[in-house]
Amino acid sequence: MESTALITDLYELTMTQSYLEHGKTGKAVFSLFVRRLPENRNFLVACGLETLMKSLENFKFGDRELKYLKSLGIFKDWFLDYLRELELDLEFYALEEGTIFFQNEPILQVEGSLPKAQLIETLVINLIHFETLIASKAVRNYIAAKGKTLVDFGLRRAHSPMAGLLSARACYIGGFNGTSNLQAGMLYGIPVFGTMAHSYIMVFDQEEEAFRAFAKSFPDRVFLLIDTYNTVEGAKKALKLLKEGIKVLGVRIDSGDIPELCREVRRIFDQEGFKDVKILVSGGVDEYDIERWVSEGVPIDAFGVGTKLLTSADAPYLDIAYKLVEYEGKPKFKESPGKKTFPYKRQVWRFLKDGKFDYDKVSRFQEGGLVKRVSFPLPSLKEIRERVLEQINQLPEELKSLRKKVEYRVEVDE
Amino acid sequence: MESTALITDLYELTMTQSYLEHGKTGKAVFSLFVRRLPENRNFLVACGLETLMKSLENFKFGDRELKYLKSLGIFKDWFLDYLRELELDLEFYALEEGTIFFQNEPILQVEGSLPKAQLIETLVINLIHFETLIASKAVRNYIAAKGKTLVDFGLRRAHSPMAGLLSARACYIGGFNGTSNLQAGMLYGIPVFGTMAHSYIMVFDQEEEAFRAFAKSFPDRVFLLIDTYNTVEGAKKALKLLKEGIKVLGVRIDSGDIPELCREVRRIFDQEGFKDVKILVSGGVDEYDIERWVSEGVPIDAFGVGTKLLTSADAPYLDIAYKLVEYEGKPKFKESPGKKTFPYKRQVWRFLKDGKFDYDKVSRFQEGGLVKRVSFPLPSLKEIRERVLEQINQLPEELKSLRKKVEYRVEVDE
Repeated sequence: MESTALITDLYELTMTQSYLEHGKTGKAVFSLFVRRLPENRNFLVACGLETLMKSLENFKFGDRELKYLKSLGIFKDWFLDYLRELELDLEFYALEEGTIFFQNEPILQVEGSLPKAQLIETLVINLIHFETLIASKAVRNYIAAKGKTLVDFGLRRAHSPMAGLLSARACYIGGFNGTSNLQAGMLYGIPVFGTMAHSYIMVFDQEEEAFRAFAKSFPDRVFLLIDTYNTVEGAKKALKLLKEGIKVLGVRIDSGDIPELCREVRRIFDQEGFKDVKILVSGGVDEYDIERWVSEGVPIDAFGVGTKLLTSADAPYLDIAYKLVEYEGKPKFKESPGKKTFPYKRQVWRFLKDGKFDYDKVSRFQEGGLVKRVSFPLPSLKEIRERVLEQINQLPEELKSLRKKVEYRVEVDE
Repeated sequence: MESTALITDLYELTMTQSYLEHGKTGKAVFSLFVRRLPENRNFLVACGLETLMKSLENFKFGDRELKYLKSLGIFKDWFLDYLRELELDLEFYALEEGTIFFQNEPILQVEGSLPKAQLIETLVINLIHFETLIASKAVRNYIAAKGKTLVDFGLRRAHSPMAGLLSARACYIGGFNGTSNLQAGMLYGIPVFGTMAHSYIMVFDQEEEAFRAFAKSFPDRVFLLIDTYNTVEGAKKALKLLKEGIKVLGVRIDSGDIPELCREVRRIFDQEGFKDVKILVSGGVDEYDIERWVSEGVPIDAFGVGTKLLTSADAPYLDIAYKLVEYEGKPKFKESPGKKTFPYKRQVWRFLKDGKFDYDKVSRFQEGGLVKRVSFPLPSLKEIRERVLEQINQLPEELKSLRKKVEYRVEVDE
């Protein structure tokens, strides 16, 4: 894997050189937290820790990186030597992946020598921010879908291939059943799903010919895209195949008046006794659509969710920060307007009432709460996903609302 | 570099196997275009072609990829052999990077055997979509800034490190002067900028001590962050250093009432004759802020633009599609509601009036318009950037509006 050491802002390196020059190498604690939740989020899901830990294994300054840094004419030779020899002997305290969390709660705290804990800032924020953003969006779809199948179809409009890959992981953690992304299937073992595109249908002279050709190629995986020309006519052609004994598992509808089309298509299959044929809906779907259609009883079995999920379109970023909270045992905090921070390494305590989240408390660190020292092996994706789904059951109903802003009580011990 | 072949949706591979089984290997043309521009965009900037071309060089199915595909139990052995031997002998017709374009204009057209042109769909959309999205956002900042310096500070909240890297490239193309992203500096030669973080200031017992320490470490690069405790007091400390002969190049303000603070800070420096000290503003800045502050004459010399730029927060995706438009010389098009496409390989003609864009025409392809066959070497980043800035001068004023939606006339020859 390539070095991740230059996935950073220039100032991390200038600061680090200067820290070393001025003997600022004492023990520091940095805390990564979200100041305020976005308007459209009542809770967030911690995600990205494993990705970060793996990336830090490759946080190494090799010849290429050092040659580039030298070319900038900013850094001293002794500092470049320091970077070459760098070992990130840092300790990490974190909410386990899949933990639901709220404003001002430390997702990750990094403890160690100041220059080292500073150097990794940009990578820490980037990786935890993004997967947390997407897992938090995905779980809203999970809540809305009430048990129906959810598949991530978003790779093509994710913000880079890597965003697509990390999103597939975060969506699975957030309750999705699978992804169309083969790289994610290979690297994470996430189940992969797929049907066919409109181009496939259009290459054949007749839609029915296309359906038959696909069924011949993949007799056990016949899932037909029926909206290329006319969705109802498409469903009737699928029905024709079914009547001939071809095992059509389902159909996909990607455009049009979804509730009306789904009802009509459902009727077409049900009338002839093909009640097992699934209907998958895609095409700009988000959790608001899912919630509406599910609550209206629109006969949909599965959702292919893409663009708005992988870009977290209604909240495309979090107000996340990585701040120095302690240096050489002394408290550190900032009082800039709107950007207040709290000092010291922290613990998060969660209090339940009748089995549901009641309130949280953030206090100075001691063992026993939600924040744990990161140790290996890290949990598997399945374990993380199960942790998320368990907590969803513990969320008060009002926090699960997709539209109503509810602020969960977090008491911060100042 | 790692294989890019599995940066794809499962259905691309199932379709491809089926095409081969049914002899659908004739010449196809796929077209990548944006159906409708987002509400907040009057024009877009084509970007990402070089990134795509480089990624396609690594579109190879190696042992690891093939082993995974075999494990799915979906594909036939002869098809896996086909993938192993795959050579992408495709032809690409594209708008040159940096070309301003509008709805229904083909950004990229891929011509070649159907299975091959299909296989790369997901990667094509992903890479062109994202850099186009960011370049189109960046150029709005460029228009708003009216010549003031713009630096991309967004890596930490980009959607993955790769999104940060590709964004730095797209921002530079869209008129930015540089980036804080060192990886982008190394890989693309983009100028890098940086100051210091609040943590640096906070590690020292006194703010002034921090300023002096930084000045000692980097006497030629003294750019001071002055808002950690009190911005006006911070400016006075910077002034103290200036009076002692320390070469303070500028100050950064990251929070608070920006117009008021900038005016006050400017006054502090100007009163004592330090008119060259620059003021850089950061912290949630976007083109709307920039436009307002520049038009109000707020004394700001440079903007550090981050989160909202690299997530394209006011338009986080484009309605982009890669559609089959021609197969074996026959026209292909789709009539799904709201997803109409136009057949055949196309050319884009641009008509100017008094040196300004007047209207565009999209017709069947013939040489001589904006669409050109992709040939190597591709233009340099600087050349692409200059092309963008030249076209900005040719844009009618109303199209440059950040807030008013104006639809440019594109005549599509059906």
